Amino acid sequence: MEKAYKSSKLPAPTIERLAYYTRPLEIYLKAGIPVISSEALARHCGVNSAQVRKDLAHFGEFGVRGVGYEVETLLKEIKKILSTDREWNLCIVGLGNLGTALAENQNFAKRGYKFVAAFDSDPEKIGKYLPGGLKIHPVEKLPDLVEKLKIEIGVITTPPQQAQGVAELLFSAGIKAILNFAPIQIRSPECCIVENVDFSVNLENLAYHLENLFEE
Amino acid sequence: MEKAYKSSKLPAPTIERLAYYTRPLEIYLKAGIPVISSEALARHCGVNSAQVRKDLAHFGEFGVRGVGYEVETLLKEIKKILSTDREWNLCIVGLGNLGTALAENQNFAKRGYKFVAAFDSDPEKIGKYLPGGLKIHPVEKLPDLVEKLKIEIGVITTPPQQAQGVAELLFSAGIKAILNFAPIQIRSPECCIVENVDFSVNLENLAYHLENLFEE
Repeated sequence: MEKAYKSSKLPAPTIERLAYYTRPLEIYLKAGIPVISSEALARHCGVNSAQVRKDLAHFGEFGVRGVGYEVETLLKEIKKILSTDREWNLCIVGLGNLGTALAENQNFAKRGYKFVAAFDSDPEKIGKYLPGGLKIHPVEKLPDLVEKLKIEIGVITTPPQQAQGVAELLFSAGIKAILNFAPIQIRSPECCIVENVDFSVNLENLAYHLENLFEE
Repeated sequence: MEKAYKSSKLPAPTIERLAYYTRPLEIYLKAGIPVISSEALARHCGVNSAQVRKDLAHFGEFGVRGVGYEVETLLKEIKKILSTDREWNLCIVGLGNLGTALAENQNFAKRGYKFVAAFDSDPEKIGKYLPGGLKIHPVEKLPDLVEKLKIEIGVITTPPQQAQGVAELLFSAGIKAILNFAPIQIRSPECCIVENVDFSVNLENLAYHLENLFEE
């Protein structure tokens, strides 16, 4: 059964929804509520309940018709699917305001994403410590530390002009997955994955719906 | 024709893809390249070319079979659909590292999203100026300034405990759209839209694909 999850490639929007489902599930689990209905799950995540049932039906029988889903079981199964039932070591390159905000984000660590190294090229920053205790290393140390600390995911928060160079450094150090916040499209070898984060896409989505709200 | 775009509600993933299509189109336009193929557009955006053709077919005849799309026309049409052919006034609440990074993001302004006011509740920050020249106001001034500066979108970058209160202040000041970076789900009235940004969803997406890369 587990093998079946892993080998079937889920489309990105499904994975995104599954990740969102874990948020209310964690709240219910913490509050000691054992069961959640598809309607409640849908409402918390801003999707419709038919979509929730369809998404969760992919993976077998999580729910009991007319009752709901067992919170603890469902959360565990989704985490297994998303591979968030383990820890990942991350590094971050570029410690401006955004990089510092991400490195300090408690939410990442809670979900198993642990920043274990930080890099910058600015001599003013190198050798200093982030409030969370992480030391800022020169980028030259990247290949060594990636190997030593078993880093699997790189996060880029440099200015756009430096992002491609940093990505290539990360790839050649053996990293296969990059989360890129710099506003450029990073070219990557076939074996690697880059996820670009562009907040203005969120704003464009809002603006589109806002325009439609007024027209109705 | 224009009316037809506006009244048909496009699903969020389509809007997101359209927003991404504008990125390479802007690069081509700047470089003076008049035509782009669906394959090139797809490659730049990490989707397949059939998806590109399907998305763009929604809006009529942008392309010429076997040749490609006229860069300038296509960009103009997408901007019209996304309502990015106009300017939007934004305010930001919470000037920690993330808030400061967003307020300084040149990309937003380039796309017509202009931060015109910044708010915080920390007496240490109030009255100070951001590097870009924006003054930090106390949150009490929010209702006044939202009206005076015709602010339409609010961006929340406060700690999670304050986010719901700030959202309610924004709604009651007449704002109908919020981009929320605080790690909580914001409750909103029916007439308003909240878009929650959660970077750990991007990490979960990466981790899922990374796990699959290794298993193949």
